[in-house]
Amino acid sequence: MNFSIESAVEILRQTPYTLSRMLDGLSEAWTHEGGSRENWSPYDVVGHLIHGEETDWIARAEMILAQGENRTFEPYDRLAQFERSKGKSLDELLTEFAHLRSANLEKLVRWQLTDEQLDLTATHPALGEVTLRQILSTWVVHDLNHIRQIVVFMARKYDQEVGQWKQYLKILQ
Amino acid sequence: MNFSIESAVEILRQTPYTLSRMLDGLSEAWTHEGGSRENWSPYDVVGHLIHGEETDWIARAEMILAQGENRTFEPYDRLAQFERSKGKSLDELLTEFAHLRSANLEKLVRWQLTDEQLDLTATHPALGEVTLRQILSTWVVHDLNHIRQIVVFMARKYDQEVGQWKQYLKILQ
Repeated sequence: MNFSIESAVEILRQTPYTLSRMLDGLSEAWTHEGGSRENWSPYDVVGHLIHGEETDWIARAEMILAQGENRTFEPYDRLAQFERSKGKSLDELLTEFAHLRSANLEKLVRWQLTDEQLDLTATHPALGEVTLRQILSTWVVHDLNHIRQIVVFMARKYDQEVGQWKQYLKILQ
Repeated sequence: MNFSIESAVEILRQTPYTLSRMLDGLSEAWTHEGGSRENWSPYDVVGHLIHGEETDWIARAEMILAQGENRTFEPYDRLAQFERSKGKSLDELLTEFAHLRSANLEKLVRWQLTDEQLDLTATHPALGEVTLRQILSTWVVHDLNHIRQIVVFMARKYDQEVGQWKQYLKILQ
């Protein structure tokens, strides 16, 4: 499947609603407890997604589109949420994420990017040359990746409870 | 985390809504195309979840609770959906799943199961002796496992589009 703005936006606009439906009203035993810098809870993941909306995807797209002299991305802080989310409820984070995502998608759609623009490049500090098309594709897969991470975290809570069925459940391998 | 009916129901009641939010309005390129018996699309997964509501979890729980003479489960048909879903839209399947799940959860909650009942056993044709607690725990993890499968299927659509970022995206490994 080839990248297109239309197909990317289909996924990107659902993610905040999907996460709200998935997590809203769950007890903290599912969404928060047992999370750490090495093993993010759903709460930590939502904080990470917020930080991405603020500093990663659209900010990097803007840098590429501006085609200025310095087109090397700032390194991205993968652990920023452990400070930034402090004192906030999961519900507050989910609302914040939905607002930021919605504003970013408005911007993206308004740009009406051409194929030529999608081929523009910048330099990733570790990965080297990347295109705008690759950034936007990665934004989509990054959403799905973190939904995956959330369900894996929750499934492991019952790792011992499923008994022999564990061998049939890929999510627990 | 120990199994409890309350914590299990928290997840089980969200799943139909989570899937509706995640899949509703997506084009078939995301939800249907490229699916096969070996690589289920989101459409195939929802059909599988429906079959589970009809023949697996609650039916097996009822067999255990009845404590009849023959307490060996019928083997479960993992591919039933490839016949059963024929001609139905994803939207129809999502609605059907939500109705079946809701009726099954009503039944589960009405039972007010005791710890002694949760320890009752039956025989799984491949796994041997299993408890009711394990069946119900597996029902929860099975939901999460299939949400995981759906996001993996969709993420792979952009496998080639993300370029060098692939190495950072666990979902594409």
